[in-house]
Order: sequence, then structure tokens, then C-alpha cells
Amino acid sequence: MSDDATAFVPGHITGFFSAHPDDDPAVAGSRGAGLTLSHGVTVTVKPAPEPATFLDDEPVEMPPVADVLQTLGVSATVRAESELPLGAGFGVSGAMALGTALAANAVFDCGRSENELVTVAHEAEVRAGTGLGDVVAQARGGLPIRVEPGAPNHGRMDGISARPRVEYVAFGGLSTAEILSGDTTALTDAGESALEALRARPTLDRFLAESRRFARDADLLTDRVAAAIEDVRETGGDGSMAMLGETVFAVGTGLSDAGYDAESCRVHAAGATLRDD
Amino acid sequence: MSDDATAFVPGHITGFFSAHPDDDPAVAGSRGAGLTLSHGVTVTVKPAPEPATFLDDEPVEMPPVADVLQTLGVSATVRAESELPLGAGFGVSGAMALGTALAANAVFDCGRSENELVTVAHEAEVRAGTGLGDVVAQARGGLPIRVEPGAPNHGRMDGISARPRVEYVAFGGLSTAEILSGDTTALTDAGESALEALRARPTLDRFLAESRRFARDADLLTDRVAAAIEDVRETGGDGSMAMLGETVFAVGTGLSDAGYDAESCRVHAAGATLRDD
Repeated sequence: MSDDATAFVPGHITGFFSAHPDDDPAVAGSRGAGLTLSHGVTVTVKPAPEPATFLDDEPVEMPPVADVLQTLGVSATVRAESELPLGAGFGVSGAMALGTALAANAVFDCGRSENELVTVAHEAEVRAGTGLGDVVAQARGGLPIRVEPGAPNHGRMDGISARPRVEYVAFGGLSTAEILSGDTTALTDAGESALEALRARPTLDRFLAESRRFARDADLLTDRVAAAIEDVRETGGDGSMAMLGETVFAVGTGLSDAGYDAESCRVHAAGATLRDD
Repeated sequence: MSDDATAFVPGHITGFFSAHPDDDPAVAGSRGAGLTLSHGVTVTVKPAPEPATFLDDEPVEMPPVADVLQTLGVSATVRAESELPLGAGFGVSGAMALGTALAANAVFDCGRSENELVTVAHEAEVRAGTGLGDVVAQARGGLPIRVEPGAPNHGRMDGISARPRVEYVAFGGLSTAEILSGDTTALTDAGESALEALRARPTLDRFLAESRRFARDADLLTDRVAAAIEDVRETGGDGSMAMLGETVFAVGTGLSDAGYDAESCRVHAAGATLRDD
């Protein structure tokens, strides 16, 4: 057993999705598409008699992280450092769950495969109600298309072949749990329609166009987000809203060209991984 | 249509495998496990009236590359730069096929998904008889376990969660086509048994032990390879033989500790990707 182990998990912005709840958390999930980011969350797991979780040095209650430790049958201190804000549509809670699973497996020598670890983290997110598709996307990297929902033994993934720069501005949070626990019929209809259109031509341009249509049809746009997307489009850029957060993303320099003070990163080529030994 | 596009594909060493031929090249494949390498092949595709392929500036006949271009319905010059030797068990032909698919899709705006591009390259490799499992492993990255054979719509992948340093020494080539076209019964029995043992405990140590057992049971060890593995083991290291090449690999500094002039790289976290725009 090593002293500690560290994993990096890319952030994940969903452009559009449909919700597919199920009593079995490995079967539950979402279909949709998004982008993983080179900005993400670094998670260090160290054995400790009492479990405790910290986000950027502050103690936090993070039910999916506690659930992962319990499923693996271990007790540890989990320290996460995030380049991305929590609750703003970047999959930070999913990243913390998945990073905990990977790092705990290494430090406690649990002998689980990557699919098994992704399943443990996905189930924890679903049970906590904090996400349905971030974990499987973050495990894959790139521009993931969630073709079928659920953990690796149930779901199916594809991807858009592209490596754009990405900019984003986070205005604030939206409650994923609140939206997912309400009536998701209109949202799911819009998400299914966007997925069908994307799969017919899986390109970055189509992804962005379908994401904008989804945000409008699912009635999720806030005024600030709608205005920023409009500004990006007027200066010749392309972008949409991060689901679910009051966050705008754009490819290339779309947001800075439109005068926004945006963070800049890239689509991340790799999925979540242990940090180099 | 851009002027050209470039993709990077990691090398792939198979530790053990079983062969699963099929009349449908998308269904044909191998089960087994291996490691993808940060050393790999960079492939640049540029539209041209007559197709031509170069490896390290030398014109080469590379049927899987020609097949990929034909399937995508495009004509191009393909220039590959390889950090790894051809025909020595590093998946260079698979890398050239997959890199061609990714870069051609970008430069000709073919609008194919990543799974579709992996399928095109996998089918080309199978038809050429140059490989059965490298392409799907190289598309995934990490330490891929090929749980079920075939292209993405048929196969199923998992992975070992680890990021070791890797060393290798290539003594020479073995003909993949020759071995795969002979009687593969003993090889496949040994490969299936190794996969079952690895899936029961998917760790790096188990992978290395099962790879060594496979090389011996499938009767593929050459004298030079057997001696080098023995030397690595005697100095406390761990490694095995690359399938199919007269190549030895070791984790950490296993080969240099044993006095070999070895190349050094890492397990590659990402699968094949377009190079950053």
C-alpha cells in the first residue's frame, strides 16, 4: 500500500442530453454529447482512520465521494484541487467521484479494472442525484457522445474527432439535482432530437448548432447566458450553454473576441488517469 | 477543406492475445491485453491526385493505409513519422491506418465519428492481415484489455488502471501475417487462459505474469528474447515479449537495470488524436 495516489480528471461540459433514470444506478444515465476540458480536478487519496473530503483545502460534504470510498471498502482523506467552479456545469462532482475511485484503487491496491472503477463512480453520482453522464464522459476524454446511457457494461460511447480550443465564462450555478428531479419530458425530447441530428453528421459545427437548439427548446437559457451566446455569434464565433450551469462556452476565441473575460483551455485528449508515478 | 491534417497514434505492445477470425472484418479481431506507448506514429494527410504513402520519408507499400483512403473515398499523400520500428510488435501499421483515418476525416471533412474511423482502420488492418487488435487498443490508450474482439460496434474494451514507465529493446521482426495465418489453436488457448486470469485481478503485475506465461505456452519466445526477460527478472525487474515481434519490454527501468541499451517511454494516457489545431 503506497502512502497516497493522485488522479487527474478532465472537466466535462454537456451541450445537450436526455435523462434516462432507472432503479439500477448502473443502467441509469443520460444520452447526449459534450466536451472534456484540459482544465479539471486533481484528486489525492490518502488512507486515514476517518473519511474526510476537501475541495481546494476547504472541508466539504460530497456524498458521491463518500459513496465511492464505502463501495471500495476503504477509509481515506480525499483532497481535490479544482481549476473549475463547483455547480456551474463542469462535472466537478463527477470528477471528484471518479478521481477518488482511480486513486483509491491505486493506494489500497483494490485490483479493480478501469470499467469497474468508472461504474463505482457513475453509480455514486446517480445515487446522489448530482449527475447522470459526466463520469462516463470524463473517463473517455475527447468530445464524448453518449450513444446509450449507463455505466460501461450498459452504455455505449462514441466521439467527435476534433481538438478545438475552448473558452468559458461561469456566471453562476444551477441545481442539477433540482432540474433532474423535475419534469424532464421536454428536455429529453429536445435531447433525443439533437442526438439523432449529431449522429447523422458527428462534427464540431453540428454539435454546437444542436447544443444551441437544445438550450432554447428545453427552455434552460438564462438571460445572461442567452446574451453572451448572442454576443459570440455576432462576432462570428460559435458556442452554447453548459448543462447544467449558468455557464457559456465557445470554441476557439469566441468569447474573448466578443469582449468577455473568459478562461481558456483545450478539449482534453485523454480520459481520467492516474498521475504519472 | 484544410491544406493538411495531422494525427498522433500511440504505439501498442500486446502482451498476450487470442485470435478470432471472421469473414466480416468488423467482427474479426483479437482478445487480449497490452500497453499503449507515448512513443508512436505521427501521420499527416494532404490531398493529392494520386495516393502515395511515406514512412520516415521513404515511399512504402502499406495496404491498410491505401484501404483506408479508398474506404473514405479520398486521394492523398500520407506521410508517417515513426518513433518505433515497423514489424517489431509495436503496431506501427495499425497506427498508420488509424492516423490516416483520423487525419483524412479532418482534411476532407468526411463527417465520420471516432468509432466509424476506428472501424475503417480496424477493417483495413484485418483485410491486410497485419493485425487484429492494435487499432482498437490504439484508439483507446492506457493499458487496454480487449474483452471482446472486433471494431467498436462489436468489441468491448476495458483497461488496467496504471501509468508505468516502459522500456523496450527491439532485436528484430516477426511476421504477424505468417503467424496469424498458421495454426493458432495453442496460441488462442494460452491467450484465453491469460485473459481469464487477468480479468479476475486486472493489475499491472498480473498482466506481466500472464504475458510471460503466454509467451512460453504459445511457444513464441526466441532465444534472445528469453535471455533478456531472464536478465530483467534476475535484476528484480518485470517484463515480457511484444506480440508479435522479437522485442522485449519491461516496466520501470527493468531493461536498463539489467544492462540493456533500452528505449524509454511511458504508458500513453490518451488514445489516437488529431494534433492540436
